[in-house]
Amino acid sequence: MSWLPTLATETPEQGFELAIKLSRMAVKATQPDDAIRSELRAEYERDADSLTRASQVVATNFQTIAAANNYWS
Amino acid sequence: MSWLPTLATETPEQGFELAIKLSRMAVKATQPDDAIRSELRAEYERDADSLTRASQVVATNFQTIAAANNYWS
Amino acid sequence: MSWLPTLATETPEQGFELAIKLSRMAVKATQPDDAIRSELRAEYERDADSLTRASQVVATNFQTIAAANNYWS
Amino acid sequence: MSWLPTLATETPEQGFELAIKLSRMAVKATQPDDAIRSELRAEYERDADSLTRASQVVATNFQTIAAANNYWS
Amino acid sequence: MSWLPTLATETPEQGFELAIKLSRMAVKATQPDDAIRSELRAEYERDADSLTRASQVVATNFQTIAAANNYWS
Amino acid sequence: MSWLPTLATETPEQGFELAIKLSRMAVKATQPDDAIRSELRAEYERDADSLTRASQVVATNFQTIAAANNYWS
Repeated sequence: MSWLPTLATETPEQGFELAIKLSRMAVKATQPDDAIRSELRAEYERDADSLTRASQVVATNFQTIAAANNYWS
Repeated sequence: MSWLPTLATETPEQGFELAIKLSRMAVKATQPDDAIRSELRAEYERDADSLTRASQVVATNFQTIAAANNYWS
Repeated sequence: MSWLPTLATETPEQGFELAIKLSRMAVKATQPDDAIRSELRAEYERDADSLTRASQVVATNFQTIAAANNYWS
Repeated sequence: MSWLPTLATETPEQGFELAIKLSRMAVKATQPDDAIRSELRAEYERDADSLTRASQVVATNFQTIAAANNYWS
Repeated sequence: MSWLPTLATETPEQGFELAIKLSRMAVKATQPDDAIRSELRAEYERDADSLTRASQVVATNFQTIAAANNYWS
Repeated sequence: MSWLPTLATETPEQGFELAIKLSRMAVKATQPDDAIRSELRAEYERDADSLTRASQVVATNFQTIAAANNYWS
């Protein structure tokens, strides 16, 4: 089964979670090794700028998801 | 109850506050520990570039919120 | 009274000024202390990359404002 | 045959893969040497911020692909 | 007279020039001193990443200008 | 003759090439000296983060070009 069968979600909160998932799947596409990603995560989750950069990616993906769901209007 | 039941807000100012909330919730998703986030905050709130980066995330989220509210027209 | 009662402006130039204001208000939300922001400003206003980053935030906010005003057509 | 005959994909997941491809083709346009790109990849795939930056590019390209496919609605 | 009376331009090339102008005016809003901006320019115009960042701002502003002109269709 | 007579292209691939061209023309507007740009290019084409940043600019410009061509639908 696809990890991304649809961009549709029932609620904005689920859409936000999907945006986070998209952000992580793009990282995984570049670095597929789970152990290495865990190591890196230990570092950047204690770096404010790294967290802000991650938040920027989520914001960009959330734009896409929100548009796909017609902003859950 | 959901922390994000809707993207609709009554006013642009409330929409801006929601954009700030989205930005922070994405950080929280990566770093859920409140104490660590507080420490990091103490650092980056005195770093001009960190503040600009944070402002960039808010701007991106505000685009989404503003579109969702049809720009409060 | 709200600092952001509307995204509508009479002219593109006023819209650009509003985009600058949004950029600054997001910084203020993270660092509310006026004295600290003034100090930081003294630094980053002499750093080319900091100025470019600030210009990026304004560009993002101007997209929102311009769309809200139907590009002043 | 073109490497980019269309932006249309059958599924969101294929669209995400196309977004990754676009991100890499832009890098290739600047650095066409396969050996050098492999070397660089070895570095940045172990750098959290580099991975986040790459994820940002994918997110931006995915916006385009998703819009092109009317969000696969 | 306003420095930004309209977002409309006759041609895409003029639109691109306007995007450059917007990028610079945002910098000027933060650093109004012409002499300091000239100094900074001397630095960053020899720094590849600085130039790329500047190009990013222009790209963002060009999105706005192009939309405002209905892509000169 | 204009270097940017239109945003219309016949194919997505040509649109991608135009996005690359826009990215470079913005750099050229800031640093018009061909020799200096060549030097800088020699550096950043061996820096993974520089290449990713360049890819980000292309992605942003490609959004504009793709929208201008109604996604070549």
